[in-house]
Amino acid sequence: MITIVVDAMGGDYAPVAPVEGICEAAAAFSDTRFIVVGDEQRIVELAKGRFPANVTVRHTDVVIAGEEEPVRAVRRKPDSSLVMAAQMVANGEADVMVSAGNTGAIMAAGMLVIGRLPGVERPALAPILPTFDGKGVLLLDAGATMDASAENLLTYAYMADAYVKHVLDIENPRIGLLNVGTEDSKGNAVVKQTFTLLSQSQLHFIGNVEAREMMAGCADVVVCDGFVGNVVLKLAEGIGIGLFSGIREALTSNLTSRLGAMLVGGRLRSLRNRYDWAEHGGAPFLGVNGGCIKAHGSSNPRAWFMALSQARKFIANDLLSKLSTAMEERNARISVPDHQYGDVER
Amino acid sequence: MITIVVDAMGGDYAPVAPVEGICEAAAAFSDTRFIVVGDEQRIVELAKGRFPANVTVRHTDVVIAGEEEPVRAVRRKPDSSLVMAAQMVANGEADVMVSAGNTGAIMAAGMLVIGRLPGVERPALAPILPTFDGKGVLLLDAGATMDASAENLLTYAYMADAYVKHVLDIENPRIGLLNVGTEDSKGNAVVKQTFTLLSQSQLHFIGNVEAREMMAGCADVVVCDGFVGNVVLKLAEGIGIGLFSGIREALTSNLTSRLGAMLVGGRLRSLRNRYDWAEHGGAPFLGVNGGCIKAHGSSNPRAWFMALSQARKFIANDLLSKLSTAMEERNARISVPDHQYGDVER
Repeated sequence: MITIVVDAMGGDYAPVAPVEGICEAAAAFSDTRFIVVGDEQRIVELAKGRFPANVTVRHTDVVIAGEEEPVRAVRRKPDSSLVMAAQMVANGEADVMVSAGNTGAIMAAGMLVIGRLPGVERPALAPILPTFDGKGVLLLDAGATMDASAENLLTYAYMADAYVKHVLDIENPRIGLLNVGTEDSKGNAVVKQTFTLLSQSQLHFIGNVEAREMMAGCADVVVCDGFVGNVVLKLAEGIGIGLFSGIREALTSNLTSRLGAMLVGGRLRSLRNRYDWAEHGGAPFLGVNGGCIKAHGSSNPRAWFMALSQARKFIANDLLSKLSTAMEERNARISVPDHQYGDVER
Repeated sequence: MITIVVDAMGGDYAPVAPVEGICEAAAAFSDTRFIVVGDEQRIVELAKGRFPANVTVRHTDVVIAGEEEPVRAVRRKPDSSLVMAAQMVANGEADVMVSAGNTGAIMAAGMLVIGRLPGVERPALAPILPTFDGKGVLLLDAGATMDASAENLLTYAYMADAYVKHVLDIENPRIGLLNVGTEDSKGNAVVKQTFTLLSQSQLHFIGNVEAREMMAGCADVVVCDGFVGNVVLKLAEGIGIGLFSGIREALTSNLTSRLGAMLVGGRLRSLRNRYDWAEHGGAPFLGVNGGCIKAHGSSNPRAWFMALSQARKFIANDLLSKLSTAMEERNARISVPDHQYGDVER
């Protein structure tokens, strides 16, 4: 039986949205147990008797806030909903945790409480970004590490390769390096170094990829550092929101356009849904030695349901052992320098 | 009289698109002279007698290609259309140059041939990115420098402040720092350092800005390094192209939707036009000691016309001396370390 532990206190709409998402997921997946961590009274009230037998609540009133310094917060608040959830994954009570809280704090809880896979210095946040061919691209790192080294980026590529193979059923994933041009010599110092490492790797490296072509679906995986990846994610979201609200406005501005909207609305809605991050679930932290999924900070009940479905799939597909095997194979081929196992820094 | 020199051999549609743009601009601006540098026979052929008296052609058949190493190409090809254009600005024959060629090569020609404003170590490419409030944001650097220092980013902010004040008529421009969160402590090492420098500056610094809010119009200027800025620019473009082609498809997929499209098409087109980079002209290299404008690589005749109009405005508004004054004022307040005047590196 799969056990998912949910930090119900993180995200913009906590605990309302996670509780709604859990109600739906628990009804849909009777083979899965859900442990909900947070303010018990509030959670039970919100559930209004809709929690089936496969949901239990674990109480805490300690929360890590969005603006807290992640590593310090995780160290000082062992009783917070986030750290309690991570502890349950660490001690085997749960298989996977889901939180919509502060990305840095989830990363710190993943690294410090659950730990890392052998050979992984820095885990990476790996969401699927919608692309216009409808297939999506795994973008990593989307914000876990700010100053990543070329070796970090190479490790991301190996993890993504294993993940995408099994999650998206792609035999030989096309791995691209996000860059400002397609020529080999482009980029900043870290990116140029990463290009060399990826070229020498066993991966199906297709070279530098520009953001424009990434959106068209030219790669299955795109590797970048966490600063760039996070900017990309938020920009893509911001443009989607802005354009679709502009479209809505255009379609409702007067009687003529409202008439037209009745005729074309359905097709435009399906375009919007394809481009909706909420449909793509959460993003795993690849490299954490346990299931660790980040739901979007603004997750609504639907996005929560999708993130919980994804967490279940992560365990059902045994992705952790597949990632672990991929890292072992990679480690066997290279000598990993000692410093890669150093302390967590911020 | 304003003199604009055009490198007619750079960009995806050269020399056809620049020639068309020049025909239109030369007719519209009789107070402006245009010098067209490139393959004379080809250019004259394409102009089909439409060049008025204010257009002259300067022949060369040497071109810098997209994939050439910029600094080396500029040094080795003094007779290329790009370097000839830069030389005309350097020796005063022209006030401003426009090219749709390789960004790196234009940057190198600007720095090596035209030179830099006092106190500027690295010029910055500064396009206006469309935002959903319709006002646009000046984003810099959009790709001139790959590994920028915090001091470089601070200089970008000072130049942008002066530029936006005079070009967009904003008295006290809101200057934001592109980051992964709004909290002061966010970002990578260079961005954190830049935050400190901007906080201590005389500028109207509004703090960290996320890409989502940037698109909504929360700042007049957004500062970032050239790697990130270039990715942002291309991503914004890629998403715009993808979504609008999705919309077009949705509106033409069957008879019903085509009927609907007749009713809403006009309003959706105006949304698309607002979001169209071609309408926003080219991007100046701020910090070059002369007018130096990059037109978009895929410029069509309309985009060329807009870029030429912008080049004219750059000189008509005396922006160079305004930028120069702003830099002098800034230099007077700080001690500029010697290494800032070092050699051009790549």
